[in-house]
Amino acid sequence: MNAIASWIASANHSTSDFPIQNLPYGVFLYRQQARIGIAIGDKILDLRACASKSLLTGLQEEVIAACRAEVLNSLMSLGPAAWSALRHRITALLDAEQAGKETQEAVSELLVPMAEATMQLPVQIGDYTDFYASIHHATRVGKLFRPDNPLLPNYKYIPVGYHGRVSSIILSGQGIPRPCGQIKSPPPSAPIFGPTRSLDYELEVGIFVGAGNRLGQSVPIAEAEKHIFGLCLLNDWSARDMQSWEYQPLGPFLAKNFATTISPWIVPLEALTPYRIAAPERPEGDPTPLPYLCSSSGSFGIDLTLEVFLQSELMRQTGAAPTMVSRGNLRDLYWTIAQLLTHHASNGCNLRPGDLLATGTISGPTPGSEGCLLERTHDPEPIRLPSGEVRTFLEDGDQITFRAYTQKAGLPRIGLGECTGTILASTPA
Amino acid sequence: MNAIASWIASANHSTSDFPIQNLPYGVFLYRQQARIGIAIGDKILDLRACASKSLLTGLQEEVIAACRAEVLNSLMSLGPAAWSALRHRITALLDAEQAGKETQEAVSELLVPMAEATMQLPVQIGDYTDFYASIHHATRVGKLFRPDNPLLPNYKYIPVGYHGRVSSIILSGQGIPRPCGQIKSPPPSAPIFGPTRSLDYELEVGIFVGAGNRLGQSVPIAEAEKHIFGLCLLNDWSARDMQSWEYQPLGPFLAKNFATTISPWIVPLEALTPYRIAAPERPEGDPTPLPYLCSSSGSFGIDLTLEVFLQSELMRQTGAAPTMVSRGNLRDLYWTIAQLLTHHASNGCNLRPGDLLATGTISGPTPGSEGCLLERTHDPEPIRLPSGEVRTFLEDGDQITFRAYTQKAGLPRIGLGECTGTILASTPA
Repeated sequence: MNAIASWIASANHSTSDFPIQNLPYGVFLYRQQARIGIAIGDKILDLRACASKSLLTGLQEEVIAACRAEVLNSLMSLGPAAWSALRHRITALLDAEQAGKETQEAVSELLVPMAEATMQLPVQIGDYTDFYASIHHATRVGKLFRPDNPLLPNYKYIPVGYHGRVSSIILSGQGIPRPCGQIKSPPPSAPIFGPTRSLDYELEVGIFVGAGNRLGQSVPIAEAEKHIFGLCLLNDWSARDMQSWEYQPLGPFLAKNFATTISPWIVPLEALTPYRIAAPERPEGDPTPLPYLCSSSGSFGIDLTLEVFLQSELMRQTGAAPTMVSRGNLRDLYWTIAQLLTHHASNGCNLRPGDLLATGTISGPTPGSEGCLLERTHDPEPIRLPSGEVRTFLEDGDQITFRAYTQKAGLPRIGLGECTGTILASTPA
Repeated sequence: MNAIASWIASANHSTSDFPIQNLPYGVFLYRQQARIGIAIGDKILDLRACASKSLLTGLQEEVIAACRAEVLNSLMSLGPAAWSALRHRITALLDAEQAGKETQEAVSELLVPMAEATMQLPVQIGDYTDFYASIHHATRVGKLFRPDNPLLPNYKYIPVGYHGRVSSIILSGQGIPRPCGQIKSPPPSAPIFGPTRSLDYELEVGIFVGAGNRLGQSVPIAEAEKHIFGLCLLNDWSARDMQSWEYQPLGPFLAKNFATTISPWIVPLEALTPYRIAAPERPEGDPTPLPYLCSSSGSFGIDLTLEVFLQSELMRQTGAAPTMVSRGNLRDLYWTIAQLLTHHASNGCNLRPGDLLATGTISGPTPGSEGCLLERTHDPEPIRLPSGEVRTFLEDGDQITFRAYTQKAGLPRIGLGECTGTILASTPA
C-alpha cells in the first residue's frame, strides 16, 4: 500500500502526529474569534475560512454551516455520512496528487501555524461519563482499596462507569492547582482538611459522542460506533487520599472533579479505521457478555500506544528532557468503546452530540504499563527521575504529558497530539 | 404581623402555593416562544412582556435583559442584590396596596392563566450533583445494602455526594418508561437484561446555583447561601435491582440516569427567609464538622414539609384521589444546603449559574416519613392503596406526585408546586 502524501511538507514527516491520514478537529482562536480547524503537519487549516472562500462548495448546507460554528457540536450531530463527506473534501484539498496548483495556493492562505494558534475547548460538553474499562487497573487498584475483594463480581458483566464533572474539564496546558480536601489517617484520628498529599494522573482516552439517541431509546451494539465522532487524550487527575476517604458508597467526587484535562485535537474514528484490530478475546473461563453487549465479529479494537512522560521543575531548570514513566495500549481494555456506549444507553439514557465518555485508566498487565502512579505504589521502589529525584505521587512543578499513536506497515503513524498539565502549589482556601 | 395581599384574588387563597410572598420563577411557552414567568395564584406573570412594557424601568439594564431571556441562567448569574431588586419590583406590581389602578390594568394584560401555559425546563443545567444528606435515609438504605455496615465512617464528616446525569433531567408531567438493565439474582445465577422489577422514587429538593465560583476557588460557608438562587422539588427515579448490582465501586449509574424529574417553579431562597429556622443540632457524641463546614449560628435550616402521593391507574379509572404515602421535612437533613455547596467547592471545583444540586432522599426518623419505597421494604406490610391494590415498588401506570410547603403564624403558606410523573410500560430494547 502506498500512503498518500500532502503537499504540506511537515505533514509527511515520520515524527508528525498529523499526516493527511489523520485530519483531527480542534477549535482555535484567530482574530479573537473561535474557529474550527483541522491539524495538518505543523499547520491548522481554518475550516471557517474554507467555508467563506467556497472551498467546501458541493457539501450539504448543514455541513458547511457546521464548519462555521465556534464549537464542534453541530458537526458532531450530523452523523457519519456528513463527517465522511467533509473528510473526503478536506483530503482532496490537502492531497499532493489531487490538489492542483490553484487549490494549493488558495488553501495555503487559510493555514495558520500551530505554534501561533491558541487552542480552546473544542466542544460544549453536555455530560461527561468516566468508565473503568481496564481490568488490569481495576484489579491493581481494587487490591489497594479492598485487599480481600479486588475485582468485584459485577466487573466482567458490566462496563462499570459513573458520571464526572463537566465544569472543570480544561484544555491541555492549563495548570493544576493542588486541591484541598478531607484527608483521613487511620483511626482513631479524625480527618483533617488540607492539600492532597497523593496527587495522581490517570491515563485515559476520551470518546466524543456524535449523533445522540433520544431519551428512552437504546443504541444497538452494531450501531454504537456510528455514534462516535472521535477520540482524544484525557487526564483524570486524582487525589488518592481524598478518594479513599470519600468514595463509599456513591463513588469518587471531590477527589476527581477539581480538574480533568483533555487534548485539543479530536481524531475522527474514521481516521483510525485502517489501523483497527479485532477486539481482544476474553480469557478462558470469563463469562460471555450479555447479548446486548455482544457484537458479531469485527474490528472493534484499537491498537493505540499510550505514553506518559514526567518532567519535574528541577528537570526543566536543568534542561533535562521529560522521562517516560509508562507505556500502555488501548487494546488492553476489557471492554470496547462500542460496549461502553451501548451500555450507557441501554436503559434509555440519552446521549447528546458532544457528550464525553472516557475509558478509565488504561493499564496493561505488565510492569511499566500502569496508567497511574497509584498502581505503582506496590512497587518497592518509587520512580527515580534522571534528576536524582524520586516520586511516589506528584510534586508541585511536575509536568505530566500524555502522547498516543497508532501505526501499521505501509501507513504513516497517526498521533493524538499531547495532553499536558503542570501541578501548581495549593492556593489557600 | 399582617401579611401583604395581592390584588390577584387567587394568590390570597389559603390553599394556593403561590401567594405574593412566594413569587417563584419558571419558563413557559407562549406564542411559540419560551418566556420567563413568575407564578402568582393561578396566573403567570410574563416577565419578558413586563420588560417590553417598561414595567421594569429603573432596574439595572442587565437585570432587564436577563428577564427577556429564554432560560434563567443569566438572571441566576447576577447574584442576590439583583434578584432582590427584581423581587422588590414585582412585589410592588402585584401588591394590593402598592399597585394603583393603572398599574393593575397594565399588569393584568401580562398575566397568563397557568392552566393554559406549557411549562418548560427553566434552566440550562450545566452540571447536576446529588447528595446524600439525610442520615435517616443513609442508615436505612445502608442496612439493606450493607447489613454489617449501614452508616459508613465518613458520613458524619463528609456531605457525601456524586455527579448525576444532566441530559435526562425532565420536567414534571413527562412519562417515565420503565428502564431495562442488568438484574442479578443471588449466585450462582448470572445477571439477565430486562425491565427493572423494583422501580422507586426518591423525594428530594433541588437547589439551583446562582452566581458561581471560579475554578480553583472555594466558597466560604458564610458566603454559601449567596450562591443559591432557589429551590424546587426533584424526583430521583431509581431502579433498585439495577442499583444493587452495578453500584460498586463507582456509585449508582444506569439505575438513576434514565430520568430525573424536577418541578417547574423555582422558589427564591429569599422568599423562604421569613420561614427559616435554626439548623438542627447534631446529636450528642457526633463529631463537630471540620472548620470549613462550620457556620456561626444563624437560620441555616428550612422547615419545609414534603409529601408524597401515589395514584395507581386503577385509582384514576375509578376516580379515587391520590393517596399520601409519606410525609417528611427538609429540616431533618444532617447537612444544611450551605454545607452541601461549600463542600462541593472546597477542592476548587467550579459551580456555574444554573448548576443543580439535590439533597438526596429526604427521610425522617419515624415510620411514614421515609422518602422512598426502598426504605419501607423492611416493613412487614407493603403499602395498601384505597383501591385494594398493594405496592412494594412502582407498577406501570402509577403516578407519583411530590408537594412541599412551609408555613408560619401570621404569614401565608408558601408551596413549591407539584413534581409528578407516571410510570409507562417498558419499551422494547
